[in-house]
Amino acid sequence: MKEYKTIQVALLGLGTVGFGVYKVLQMQKEEMRYKIGTEIEIKKILVRNLEKAASRIEDPSVLTNDWKEIAEDDEIQIVIEVMGGMEPARTYIMEAMQAGKHVVTANKDLIAADGKELMDEAKEMGCDLLFEAAVAGGIPIIRPLKQCLAGNHLTEIMGIINGTTNFILTKMTQDNMEFDEALALATKLGYAEADPTADIEGLDAGRKVAIMASIAFNSRVTFDDVYTEGITKITAADIRYAKEMGCDIKLLGVARNTPDGIEVRVHPMLIPSTHPLASVNDSFNAVFVHGDAVDDAMFYGRGAGELPTASAIVGDVFDIARNLQYECNGRISCTCYKEIPIKKMDDIECKYFLRMLVKNRPGVLAGVTTVFGSQMVSIEQIIQKKKFGELAEIVVITETVKESSVKASLEEFEKMEIVKEISAMIRVYGED
Amino acid sequence: MKEYKTIQVALLGLGTVGFGVYKVLQMQKEEMRYKIGTEIEIKKILVRNLEKAASRIEDPSVLTNDWKEIAEDDEIQIVIEVMGGMEPARTYIMEAMQAGKHVVTANKDLIAADGKELMDEAKEMGCDLLFEAAVAGGIPIIRPLKQCLAGNHLTEIMGIINGTTNFILTKMTQDNMEFDEALALATKLGYAEADPTADIEGLDAGRKVAIMASIAFNSRVTFDDVYTEGITKITAADIRYAKEMGCDIKLLGVARNTPDGIEVRVHPMLIPSTHPLASVNDSFNAVFVHGDAVDDAMFYGRGAGELPTASAIVGDVFDIARNLQYECNGRISCTCYKEIPIKKMDDIECKYFLRMLVKNRPGVLAGVTTVFGSQMVSIEQIIQKKKFGELAEIVVITETVKESSVKASLEEFEKMEIVKEISAMIRVYGED
Repeated sequence: MKEYKTIQVALLGLGTVGFGVYKVLQMQKEEMRYKIGTEIEIKKILVRNLEKAASRIEDPSVLTNDWKEIAEDDEIQIVIEVMGGMEPARTYIMEAMQAGKHVVTANKDLIAADGKELMDEAKEMGCDLLFEAAVAGGIPIIRPLKQCLAGNHLTEIMGIINGTTNFILTKMTQDNMEFDEALALATKLGYAEADPTADIEGLDAGRKVAIMASIAFNSRVTFDDVYTEGITKITAADIRYAKEMGCDIKLLGVARNTPDGIEVRVHPMLIPSTHPLASVNDSFNAVFVHGDAVDDAMFYGRGAGELPTASAIVGDVFDIARNLQYECNGRISCTCYKEIPIKKMDDIECKYFLRMLVKNRPGVLAGVTTVFGSQMVSIEQIIQKKKFGELAEIVVITETVKESSVKASLEEFEKMEIVKEISAMIRVYGED
Repeated sequence: MKEYKTIQVALLGLGTVGFGVYKVLQMQKEEMRYKIGTEIEIKKILVRNLEKAASRIEDPSVLTNDWKEIAEDDEIQIVIEVMGGMEPARTYIMEAMQAGKHVVTANKDLIAADGKELMDEAKEMGCDLLFEAAVAGGIPIIRPLKQCLAGNHLTEIMGIINGTTNFILTKMTQDNMEFDEALALATKLGYAEADPTADIEGLDAGRKVAIMASIAFNSRVTFDDVYTEGITKITAADIRYAKEMGCDIKLLGVARNTPDGIEVRVHPMLIPSTHPLASVNDSFNAVFVHGDAVDDAMFYGRGAGELPTASAIVGDVFDIARNLQYECNGRISCTCYKEIPIKKMDDIECKYFLRMLVKNRPGVLAGVTTVFGSQMVSIEQIIQKKKFGELAEIVVITETVKESSVKASLEEFEKMEIVKEISAMIRVYGED
């Protein structure tokens, strides 16, 4: 065992999360010597604007805008990357590991795209590369998946892993808002960024589900493999219909390890209101996991924010500090030892909720059901809901069928003179 | 790094959980070499009845009824204790560690009573002593508390950590059963043991909350410190009244780190139906945690059962296997480095739900409120509910007050001629 009075670290970035890490390390100052046997000291903080950063911290002499000062400082043993984005974060992390430094990062973009290269480098150098904060903020999920649940064949991960969209859908559900109104409120309250695309189109959730799938199924899944569909087309009407059927609509990241390959996708989904994920509201996140030994488990908490994200990062930093003292860095590295193919979205099987406007005349229902029949789409429920003058609304929930069959049906409907509009196509969660 | 083709382990006990571990290790046979770099092989299984056990496993030659055969076998590096109870489990675990073996146990009775002595011995010998399965079965909670959330001052833990009582309360809530009927059903379905005392009186939950409090607050809490009160006095009527007030009744293990000391207790509690714990039903468990960085987090899943409990145990065994290869056993040992006093139950502060039958005559309400006033008990809500002939029912919810003040009020009521019966006194969860 190696003794350290202090372990010196560098922080790359002093934005919301970076400042959170700075604060949490201060909050733990009195405790850490007892908790982990050493003290963590921030020796350098890399920032773009020295002046702006100086006003935020006690000792501005730790600030630098020169990465080399950190990379070449052998006293710095851990680099905490909280800048976000692909570059220069990627280069800095690689150079840090090449210099034998251990890395903690919250960078989901990077891990979801280049996880393999980064983990390979970590292994090569015997470094720790930890990223608990990259998925679901403060919620412990990476370590539980890699360690606590290692005795399982995990077959399903299903998560509400984007707080912005969950806030918007909660407002649409509870206050009957339309999407635009709920997004405007989210922006006003700071839950949505000025450009909300990555959140509302499901890209942020897609990165997180790629990372979780890689770990859960021991096979590398990158962001490119993930089908993503956002919530911009969801209407208050869809949510009302879902409620009538005992369901809520959530934006879910879904990963399933099936006999024909890995399904990995982000899209809105109807889930039964009795499902534990259905009551995860506002900006909270939750990840639901199924394994052959543990059965169902769920992890719930704050998926973002200054201190919750810092909580995950500092947990990782403390773990590396323990590894340094026990000289066992690299103890848990990449766990992707399989190469399971990714299933095409057309090949997934699911139930579907469909809503369409048709001309209100005899034989229409027969016409619609004939199309479904010809595409082998079995129907669980079909209701002619309401009439709007000449038009009638038909709402369908299918049995579990192939995505491609549903799509082919919709293509046929679009060609039919009696079908005025296909208003919604939303996947439905259900046991097979 | 040390290479092992196989790591040999011994299983103490082949009951429900023991057989689960046997099965899960078989289920992971093909995977473990890749997952953890070595294979785990069960070299010995200690059982009482060799013949009975022989019919359950593939190779009966691993069975023994002689502990010495295991203790003295230097090839056995990990002992998995799943016998339960205090003795001989305690002696075996101590002797195993004295022989330099690492230990995984699911034994909450033992850890809640003698955790300090066992962890001291582990530290002395540089052994791992892991017990993820001792609290909340398959749900990852020990490792998240010790590692993932180490960057927090945790201030509150609140858990549904007994499946039997949660099943009973769920049936009482959803099907309007009385306690006896729900217990009979639980027994019939195998959720309750022949002697259900430890479950329904809150002792089992008390052991688990003692273990969690010790880890969360870094200060040793033993089972003796825990106030326990079961669910035998809860009636279907209490649950109906709670529902009217927007609450559910759950048996909760509560631990709070307050400026005047640690509160640690198990009792039924009214919690708002919107709280994430309120929708944890049937035999599911969940643990809710609050920390200064992570804010709220919750862990949900199967709190018992053959395979879920084995999932937690095998996760621990895999972790020790990694430590053996990296020669870093003992990397995370006892984390109780403080000595925080335990608060007396009389000194806790809470809201209270009280239900009493009084004589239906003028001035009764004034009499009752005068008593509360004299004991400094502020009232949030008081309702005269119904009349039964000569009697009227009064339901009270207090503001947050001292437990001793409520008790003193109840003592005064018992002396009063106008008070016929105190039907219920149940604590209420609420923000202070």
